[in-house]
Amino acid sequence: MSNEPKNANVVWHQATVTRKRRQQQNNHKSVILWFTGFSGAGKSTLAHSVEEMLHQRSCRTFVLDGDNIRHGLCGDLGFSHKDRTENIRRIAEVAKLMRDAGVITLTAFISPFRSDREKVREQFSHGEFLEIYCQCPLDVCEQRDVKGIYKKARAGEVKEFTGISSPYEAPVNPELIVNTAEDRLEHCTEQVIALLSQRGVFVGR
Amino acid sequence: MSNEPKNANVVWHQATVTRKRRQQQNNHKSVILWFTGFSGAGKSTLAHSVEEMLHQRSCRTFVLDGDNIRHGLCGDLGFSHKDRTENIRRIAEVAKLMRDAGVITLTAFISPFRSDREKVREQFSHGEFLEIYCQCPLDVCEQRDVKGIYKKARAGEVKEFTGISSPYEAPVNPELIVNTAEDRLEHCTEQVIALLSQRGVFVGR
Repeated sequence: MSNEPKNANVVWHQATVTRKRRQQQNNHKSVILWFTGFSGAGKSTLAHSVEEMLHQRSCRTFVLDGDNIRHGLCGDLGFSHKDRTENIRRIAEVAKLMRDAGVITLTAFISPFRSDREKVREQFSHGEFLEIYCQCPLDVCEQRDVKGIYKKARAGEVKEFTGISSPYEAPVNPELIVNTAEDRLEHCTEQVIALLSQRGVFVGR
Repeated sequence: MSNEPKNANVVWHQATVTRKRRQQQNNHKSVILWFTGFSGAGKSTLAHSVEEMLHQRSCRTFVLDGDNIRHGLCGDLGFSHKDRTENIRRIAEVAKLMRDAGVITLTAFISPFRSDREKVREQFSHGEFLEIYCQCPLDVCEQRDVKGIYKKARAGEVKEFTGISSPYEAPVNPELIVNTAEDRLEHCTEQVIALLSQRGVFVGR
């Protein structure tokens, strides 16, 4: 590749495939759906249900959750306040890359600290970051205890567990609150899809 | 969302949108094109040129490079051996997520250490990780010095600079070697596209 300054290289050096072109290619905008709530509140379940619906509508989607983040990118982090903050920081960075890649990104993490979530929100343009609070009382989550983790937390085998030995700060003004304690999954899913429609994510459809 | 064990929730809890379904949606496989070589060898230029060509073929693509990684996800890392290794580890993790999202991912980093690149390769299935060596003599890169960084490195203002004060270990058996010192950008781009064709990335087209 010639190093002549007039060479086409100079032009090519920058990205020519922009977010706008990806959006046109996909026929939808790329936004972040940030699900927050207690362990067992149904964040992953709802995120995957929404993803299924979006895929059927030919959208490009991806779910970031404990399964694909905690064992990989953040495998070096624990659950101290500092590590939780770094965990959320990295997730936000990946979410930004996914957004730039044109993908509707759904994140399903407890993300208990308000300041961490606000820091994430600040990194996105208005309307790009949609915070969805999966509201479900702690006792309901504990009763479900799908992973048996509340039992361990009560026994002191799991330290700094949100709701038991570490705080959860509920969103003050989220884009959507879903009642994952009482509403059916289908209904919760529809509410999220409706939010996306309202926010103009399905452009030109 | 009911907590009855027989509820559909249990089924929904897992991801139903699989990599296979994304591949069918996109009509191409998701692979990693890992460009390696000296600073100034043309990695980013070539990656973006290949991306443009792929986008025109309706492929989903994304370029990871210093511009979107070093200031974001890896903004906390320097250029020591240890930090370079952590940098590459995180990039590999993001590349895996992008692959899972169905995206053809192009990475453009010097990635000077053979052991780091091999560690990345081991995390992918056979044929998923395509190492592309942008071969360009150091003196040519230094003469180009697009960013003026070789000058600074020679003056000792930039520490641990690959080729000057830190080693570069060339790939032993890369999937492709492109001569970015002498060949035209168009030709290099075609070679990469041909590699993807040979590897069956454009399935069912």
